[in-house]
Amino acid sequence: MNREHFVYDFLAAKKAGKEHSEEEIRTFFSMMMKDDIPDYQISAWLMAVCIKGMTFNEVVHLTLAMRDSGRTLNLDSIPGIKLDKHSTGGVGDKTTLVIVPILAAAGVPILKMSGRGLGFTGGTTDKLGSIPGFRTGLSIQEAVAQVQRWGGAMVSQVSDLSPADKRLYALRDVTATVDSIPLITSSILSKKLAVGADVILFDVKIGSGAFMRSLDEGMELARMLIRVSKAAGKDSVALLTNMDEPLGRAVGNALEVREACELLTYPHSADRRLLELCREMVANGLTLAGKKKSINEGYEEFDRILNSGDGARSLERIVSAQGGDPSIVAHPEFIPSTDNIIEVRAERPGYVTQIHAGECGRIAMAIGAGRSKLENDVNPSAGIVLNCHIGDYVERSQVLTLLHDPMGLMNDEILARFRSAIVIKAERTASTPLLYGELSSLNSTEEECIP
Amino acid sequence: MNREHFVYDFLAAKKAGKEHSEEEIRTFFSMMMKDDIPDYQISAWLMAVCIKGMTFNEVVHLTLAMRDSGRTLNLDSIPGIKLDKHSTGGVGDKTTLVIVPILAAAGVPILKMSGRGLGFTGGTTDKLGSIPGFRTGLSIQEAVAQVQRWGGAMVSQVSDLSPADKRLYALRDVTATVDSIPLITSSILSKKLAVGADVILFDVKIGSGAFMRSLDEGMELARMLIRVSKAAGKDSVALLTNMDEPLGRAVGNALEVREACELLTYPHSADRRLLELCREMVANGLTLAGKKKSINEGYEEFDRILNSGDGARSLERIVSAQGGDPSIVAHPEFIPSTDNIIEVRAERPGYVTQIHAGECGRIAMAIGAGRSKLENDVNPSAGIVLNCHIGDYVERSQVLTLLHDPMGLMNDEILARFRSAIVIKAERTASTPLLYGELSSLNSTEEECIP
Repeated sequence: MNREHFVYDFLAAKKAGKEHSEEEIRTFFSMMMKDDIPDYQISAWLMAVCIKGMTFNEVVHLTLAMRDSGRTLNLDSIPGIKLDKHSTGGVGDKTTLVIVPILAAAGVPILKMSGRGLGFTGGTTDKLGSIPGFRTGLSIQEAVAQVQRWGGAMVSQVSDLSPADKRLYALRDVTATVDSIPLITSSILSKKLAVGADVILFDVKIGSGAFMRSLDEGMELARMLIRVSKAAGKDSVALLTNMDEPLGRAVGNALEVREACELLTYPHSADRRLLELCREMVANGLTLAGKKKSINEGYEEFDRILNSGDGARSLERIVSAQGGDPSIVAHPEFIPSTDNIIEVRAERPGYVTQIHAGECGRIAMAIGAGRSKLENDVNPSAGIVLNCHIGDYVERSQVLTLLHDPMGLMNDEILARFRSAIVIKAERTASTPLLYGELSSLNSTEEECIP
Repeated sequence: MNREHFVYDFLAAKKAGKEHSEEEIRTFFSMMMKDDIPDYQISAWLMAVCIKGMTFNEVVHLTLAMRDSGRTLNLDSIPGIKLDKHSTGGVGDKTTLVIVPILAAAGVPILKMSGRGLGFTGGTTDKLGSIPGFRTGLSIQEAVAQVQRWGGAMVSQVSDLSPADKRLYALRDVTATVDSIPLITSSILSKKLAVGADVILFDVKIGSGAFMRSLDEGMELARMLIRVSKAAGKDSVALLTNMDEPLGRAVGNALEVREACELLTYPHSADRRLLELCREMVANGLTLAGKKKSINEGYEEFDRILNSGDGARSLERIVSAQGGDPSIVAHPEFIPSTDNIIEVRAERPGYVTQIHAGECGRIAMAIGAGRSKLENDVNPSAGIVLNCHIGDYVERSQVLTLLHDPMGLMNDEILARFRSAIVIKAERTASTPLLYGELSSLNSTEEECIP
């Protein structure tokens, strides 16, 4: 191979829609990680991949080459089938805070690494950061020891996993090359595979508050995640879930921790959709990890753990182990909050037909709950609490939402945007299902392996 | 328009195959020329353009935006209809050296700007550089004055024409985004339109020694060149010519100047294909510039000027005006040459069925006649002289070519490549035509204008 012409030929091949070989992909990434390939060549390649696509084999090779660009963890010292979970990112999604303690209580070891929020979607690391004293920055040794002892840990993603993904993502973000199933798949999976769990639970969000806008796109991504995971030797399940309206009631870091604690402590007053998704995820996690034989047994186990308070106690142990104040679980009102709360009331009576999740996320970001650049800070107590769901009937002047605005950033423009995001009509429209479907490698009849 | 998101949206639009508006293209180029757009965004856009293409309107806007990125000349002080000529680049193409003096002698003003050779194709500036004393680096004022006085000038392209093209080309060259009709068209025309001639003669080369490998591609480029020129207010003609074998006998700078001088001084012994192409170009140039009503009248004028010696005298005046030794025209043997000449003889008798132009160009480059990078020097006397054409019968041991190797770079590998480039077979194959066709805006019935 002529290395001088290699990159040129690699770009020309993808431009022409040809398939890269494993060796070519490995060579490209090995040169890239040695800084032998300038950004302008990488970005031209990313654009060609976006437009021309990749075969399944290429996505497998790409994912594994990216995984191998950095550190890979070894979780063998943790007994049992380790589970990992990934959500493609939504608004108000605090499921991690609920399912990690429940799965840990059910005996499924879970070392959950999370990122910080960016754009209109939140990040679990920011949410945990609102718990006084809570340390997300555990070392791998500390995290492994905690999972060995308590079954679960929720930590910041270590920085040296899939550095190739960081390099690519920085360019994708500024060259309009984010929305590519092969690139999204390899970005998600290269990091998940580097963490080294045995089975993976994916939550592919679809709707106005998600990166995947259509069910078709979401299905394609879910299918690719499952197939590539399987090729890399990991069984997995992908749930396809609705993200047209925010998940649960709260959007914003401390508010979401509070909602998660309330769900575990007072499950009977929990938001039904949030509860339903957590139940679905836990049941699937239990079957994936071989703890239960059927989804129905998984549901029963979830109900038992939740209603007995075992889930709340499990979260207390994890919070305590990571330096946080465990009393917030039983007393969610201890979580820091703001007094500057603005009520938004209905201007007319009628049925709520839309609560635009993307707009809710952006409004929460505008009042300090999120960040547009990774170097920015977030305000833990900023956010939104929704008092209604799509399909609800509301009276005129009924409080629809509470805006928690600790920095006083609210203004007429934000209020107007918020009013447009919540649509009230005289006629009720059918509410959309929470769960569109699921794909699992366990009941797949396809035979696929790394060629 | 939100400038922060403009570039992202511009890339996303082309990725999705959407049409850019004139304003968007102008904004992109104006930001680019202010260094507001990093290379990685430009190259991603180039890749998207390569794959998704551009509409005719987009190519017009792109070409004009690139033209306006730098200096535009005003040739109004030269009376008459000024002609310009562009060849897409071939091997052994010395037509400029012949047709500029002939057109000048026929009263068609021509200020010809040329580049330096790169890769396997030569550049007129390098060829002229082999004439002792000849100055290609005239100022615009000097060049205009010379055209006013003598009808023609052959100079180096000034550096500030279409700087946007320089920026794009540097990236296209390393990101496999060269072969795009919209990008090639705008690259050629932005510079031609900046020079400011009234009519343009294009020579689109097709074959192994050209950038366009197929007639279909060549036709597409020719058509786009003609249509965009017309939209910019310039009539033009595009010849589609064969570049499977080198044009004429000589490949290499001084050798090509010598062949051009010999053609003008001893037309009856000139290479027929070279003569035919020059005749076609001049006849079309004369009709384009309104000097002749028909191509046949143009042929007659060419024959008269050539056979009377007026063409040779015109070249003497131009060479002299630009500081060169005019005696080389009547005495081409005065042009510097090398004594280190290697004969390559036929290994078997038979018909020449192939003389691979691209390989001839690369071999000439390998022995010093060309450069792979613009900063390299060329050796003026290095090159190849062919003693045969496709279709000729040759005896065993007959001299096929002479390799002029002033630096002694010849070796067995180059010789072997050269032998493979010239194929001799027992059966004669049909020789390919020199001229595949031509397109002209003069007899076009299409109505096109800048929308």
